[in-house]
Amino acid sequence: MLAWLSPTRELIASALKAFFEEKKPQLARVNPFGSDLSDRLLEFALQGKMIRGCLVPLGGALCGGEPVTAGARAPAILAGAAMELFQSGLLVHDDIMDRDVKRRGKASIFQQYADVASREKNADPPHAGQALGICAGDVAYFLAFELLGRLNVAPTVLGPALSLCASELSAVGIAQMQDVAWAGSRGKVEEEEILRMYTYKTARYSFSLPLMLGGMIAGAAPDRLSDLESLGQSLGLLFQIRDDELGLFGSEEELGKPVGSDVREGKKTLYYAGLMGSADRKERGRLQEIFGSRDGSEQDLAYVRGLADSLGVISRVGAIVLAIEERARSAIQRIQPAREEDTNALLSLLDYTMARRQ
Amino acid sequence: MLAWLSPTRELIASALKAFFEEKKPQLARVNPFGSDLSDRLLEFALQGKMIRGCLVPLGGALCGGEPVTAGARAPAILAGAAMELFQSGLLVHDDIMDRDVKRRGKASIFQQYADVASREKNADPPHAGQALGICAGDVAYFLAFELLGRLNVAPTVLGPALSLCASELSAVGIAQMQDVAWAGSRGKVEEEEILRMYTYKTARYSFSLPLMLGGMIAGAAPDRLSDLESLGQSLGLLFQIRDDELGLFGSEEELGKPVGSDVREGKKTLYYAGLMGSADRKERGRLQEIFGSRDGSEQDLAYVRGLADSLGVISRVGAIVLAIEERARSAIQRIQPAREEDTNALLSLLDYTMARRQ
Repeated sequence: MLAWLSPTRELIASALKAFFEEKKPQLARVNPFGSDLSDRLLEFALQGKMIRGCLVPLGGALCGGEPVTAGARAPAILAGAAMELFQSGLLVHDDIMDRDVKRRGKASIFQQYADVASREKNADPPHAGQALGICAGDVAYFLAFELLGRLNVAPTVLGPALSLCASELSAVGIAQMQDVAWAGSRGKVEEEEILRMYTYKTARYSFSLPLMLGGMIAGAAPDRLSDLESLGQSLGLLFQIRDDELGLFGSEEELGKPVGSDVREGKKTLYYAGLMGSADRKERGRLQEIFGSRDGSEQDLAYVRGLADSLGVISRVGAIVLAIEERARSAIQRIQPAREEDTNALLSLLDYTMARRQ
Repeated sequence: MLAWLSPTRELIASALKAFFEEKKPQLARVNPFGSDLSDRLLEFALQGKMIRGCLVPLGGALCGGEPVTAGARAPAILAGAAMELFQSGLLVHDDIMDRDVKRRGKASIFQQYADVASREKNADPPHAGQALGICAGDVAYFLAFELLGRLNVAPTVLGPALSLCASELSAVGIAQMQDVAWAGSRGKVEEEEILRMYTYKTARYSFSLPLMLGGMIAGAAPDRLSDLESLGQSLGLLFQIRDDELGLFGSEEELGKPVGSDVREGKKTLYYAGLMGSADRKERGRLQEIFGSRDGSEQDLAYVRGLADSLGVISRVGAIVLAIEERARSAIQRIQPAREEDTNALLSLLDYTMARRQ
């Protein structure tokens, strides 16, 4: 579906491999965890779809920079590799917070370390796993920043690029705090709060940031950067809303994980906000029993789906999607890419965020 | 004892306050955690002794840069503020790993959030506290990097300075992993492994890094930087060994926490390595019962102290200290500061690392 992505993804993978090849012996000098963690983080980062990383060279190409398939040492590719390491760090920490022992079909990093601790007869393997996972995520961030420090870019670009990354990542952390707090509650949440969380936790960080970073590296003018920012925000929101939709209406086959896990985990999504906002007292009572209950049945899920339909939540979400899609299309028109391949890349990306199946 | 530190500490405190004054409304835009966390992190950072932060302008002064008391907008002061935020992030995560619910006489950050979660009737306050603490530490790192991105330094300096910070922080994370793994074990540990952990977890990060960073900002030559690196490493090792000494032989009054907590937590220190290496089977058995036992008595502690004396561990540690002090003094001689006040600052620092009482 995203054909343009494959060759760029290969370049980012090569950049990651080269970076870890250099760092591994350095980290190994500290103690044996250095080489062990190098291997785990590289493996972890290589498993991702690398959309974020690939958006950096795309952002550059859209601003008159090199085409997306420039060599593996191109600054945009290295910056893309840094994006993927940031993402690895965030996921490693997320899995601890969400107690997700699986990630991409394998044991998540903290669970891998809990298993190691258990084999080594540690006094408290679950706690050791969490603690080692916290360190692993931290190291992933630090390695990403080290990569940024090596970017061969114009002297006026590095400082602002670094500040932009750091500032968007802070916002992700703050948004994540809200997500954590919501996970333990069953109260009402406003649609607008949900959209704000999506904006900072996913949309700006996953789409606006890499596109803008690519633009900055290519020396884009401020108004072009702000077009990329707003395009990224729209794409990212569509991406996240599609995630919610798949979580509620997708099939296990498509998702690779059980449908309804958002409901069972009590995730605060647009559907949740809409349902809680429109349900009457009796319906709300039943919803509060279902959301966040680990042993929800297929029948419970069907009830949620039915209510989302009958209370007009599905059409409300549809209207939100339509409005955002509109904004995305007009941002693409403002950007008017010079190369046809870049226009196609953007359109396929828009398509993907709205209709992806996994 | 470190009189030169006070005015510099004030400047760094001002820089931190100004930075948070600007960031707080930005983070508040994400959600209410933004403003809340801003306040908590600033308060937390301001409580520290700020030795790390103050070493940045000292490193600069030693390389012909501005005196340590240049204005609050000086790059060395801003970089010092960044050091303090890195340290805050590391401590926030450390407290989760060590389950330390207190820090500097107050509830540690993750414990503060567990208390908030409990008041807000979260379904699992301890877990929510940990998760929010992970986010809080992450945000502290990101804010520190954002500060670095704003440094008004020569264009060739920012990239290497950023890479140096990031690379030393990665080493801290790897060293911390070892510390975590050791905390759950009661086996033998080599003196050389302990010294290597001290080097990467404390010495290089807390002393070499800020001194070198200051030197880089001041445009120091590579051989001067390597003098600062080696001086920092010696000072940091002395600092950490003094920590061990206070933990075993200090008084609760001096420490502000119960003496012997290293023993009760089973911390792997030079004393631990020496004792386990020299004890006979019977003694080792008793030591293994004492180290890591939360309810160790005053008598147990006296046994450890007595054995450290009779087995020659105290004099072995003393010999190590002497050798490192020697290296520190010769590094100071190589550096030969131009200003007398800087020589005095270094000598008082050496004195402090070896003889501080808290």
